[in-house]
Amino acid sequence: MKRVLVTGAHGFVGRHSLAPLVERGYEVYAVASKPRDDDDDVSADEVRWRACDLLHESDVETLVREVAPTHLLHFAWYVEPGKFWSSRENLRWAEASLRLFRAFAERGGRRIVAAGTCAEYDWADGLCSESETPLRPATLYGACKHATSVVLEALAREAGLSAAWGRIFFLYGPAEPASKFVASVTRSLLKGEEARCTHGRQRRDLLHVADVAGAFAALLDSDVEGAVNIASGHAVELREVVGKIAEKTGREDLVRLGAVPAPDGEPPLIAAEVKRLSEEVGFRPAFDLDAGLDDTIRWWRQHLT
Amino acid sequence: MKRVLVTGAHGFVGRHSLAPLVERGYEVYAVASKPRDDDDDVSADEVRWRACDLLHESDVETLVREVAPTHLLHFAWYVEPGKFWSSRENLRWAEASLRLFRAFAERGGRRIVAAGTCAEYDWADGLCSESETPLRPATLYGACKHATSVVLEALAREAGLSAAWGRIFFLYGPAEPASKFVASVTRSLLKGEEARCTHGRQRRDLLHVADVAGAFAALLDSDVEGAVNIASGHAVELREVVGKIAEKTGREDLVRLGAVPAPDGEPPLIAAEVKRLSEEVGFRPAFDLDAGLDDTIRWWRQHLT
Repeated sequence: MKRVLVTGAHGFVGRHSLAPLVERGYEVYAVASKPRDDDDDVSADEVRWRACDLLHESDVETLVREVAPTHLLHFAWYVEPGKFWSSRENLRWAEASLRLFRAFAERGGRRIVAAGTCAEYDWADGLCSESETPLRPATLYGACKHATSVVLEALAREAGLSAAWGRIFFLYGPAEPASKFVASVTRSLLKGEEARCTHGRQRRDLLHVADVAGAFAALLDSDVEGAVNIASGHAVELREVVGKIAEKTGREDLVRLGAVPAPDGEPPLIAAEVKRLSEEVGFRPAFDLDAGLDDTIRWWRQHLT
Repeated sequence: MKRVLVTGAHGFVGRHSLAPLVERGYEVYAVASKPRDDDDDVSADEVRWRACDLLHESDVETLVREVAPTHLLHFAWYVEPGKFWSSRENLRWAEASLRLFRAFAERGGRRIVAAGTCAEYDWADGLCSESETPLRPATLYGACKHATSVVLEALAREAGLSAAWGRIFFLYGPAEPASKFVASVTRSLLKGEEARCTHGRQRRDLLHVADVAGAFAALLDSDVEGAVNIASGHAVELREVVGKIAEKTGREDLVRLGAVPAPDGEPPLIAAEVKRLSEEVGFRPAFDLDAGLDDTIRWWRQHLT
């Protein structure tokens, strides 16, 4: 029996992880701070929902004791756009993650997979490799995620757990917060407004959110341990992404590259080595960039307000 | 006004930090989980004691609000001999440390110094340098300490705090737990029992506990930031230490080097680079190894049971 507790199950990534987990034969317990929305794409009889505030120690202990999961897929964190990089809430989520890992280990859980970030790496390197690139987070978010991974790795070794840490790069897709890059450009163009961008020559690794979630489900279902980059393996210039959205929406006329200055010290390249994900985990994305943008634009056409 | 909150103030190191802090002009608030002992060497009107269980979030918030410290010297951790290397209590103390740092930052504190460990380093390197040696803790203790330092450094940068992290190497001195190396050899020889040791060719950096505490007081009172090794800078063979204790107690006849096998994988050398402590902080130990052992043997002569 494989019973997984998924935290952050209402989140941008978490909600897409439920269907692939069910498909892989997991009994899925989905945790969120609030009860589920109606638009979740997995029906209630396949997924058992639990409301729990992971910031409260006793609630976490009760949850883990009642569910008694064999597997833990931990997405929950503070992700408020614009604020999450530097908020002290990151410390609270590092604390909450450690408490959750402790409770899981104490109840005899077998495998933990949790969400890390490319912001753990020293971005001066450009190409981020799990085995080569120094871990030197420049932000409080990256530092708290990295600290959590350091503890998880040692706890797993000590408690005889299996554990992996998926480092998410840049993602996009339906229902993304409107202020994020792909969502913001798409919404502007669909509304007939200017899409004011930086120069757009930054190269980033973008992966559709359903593939990010699918990669986590595959990682959980494998026996791969340690850090694994969750990315496409292809870094593209952001102006190319903007160009594709403009072409697909027919609004090349509204693109304003260079209208906004790029932030100081923004790295020109953040690319991911994905050998572990593709060869060890054996995961292949379902969406390439074109298919992923088509899917995203289709969703925004239906949900523009 | 400099007001310091000292956690773990009853501990082996913490209790020796109070006098040097008073001497440096700090108003000292000493925190311990239990009320103070009678044998503390700082009188009550110089040090204000507070009982607080740092594992309880609301107690910590109340403590920090009431004391309103400008400085924090954080020693408290799980240190049960024989158990601390691998206990899950390490996670609880990492969580507690993050909570304490948050509370301190939120109340406008200015500088944090906390106790780290040489066990954060990759010991394969032998000489541990703050700027050169990879941080690759092999134990849950080392990992949880290191994770705490990663968060502290990023929090300090984000919150505009000043912070330093003192990495303690090997220490000894009066009132050390009886199972520890110097205490155990000294007690055996003073009681006329065999001191059964390993081969003793391991080289370690030993520092008298009063100097460890003095170094932390000096570090707190400086503006040095980041990791600083707290050590003597001289690695000695443990059999040389045993030899000195035997000579000073006149019981060379009871020393049994090689009677106990050394643990698998025990590193031959754990030495500390101390340039930061001696040049940047400007700290010089009061005890050399001979004076420190004399002091320790004197104490054990009075406290043998």
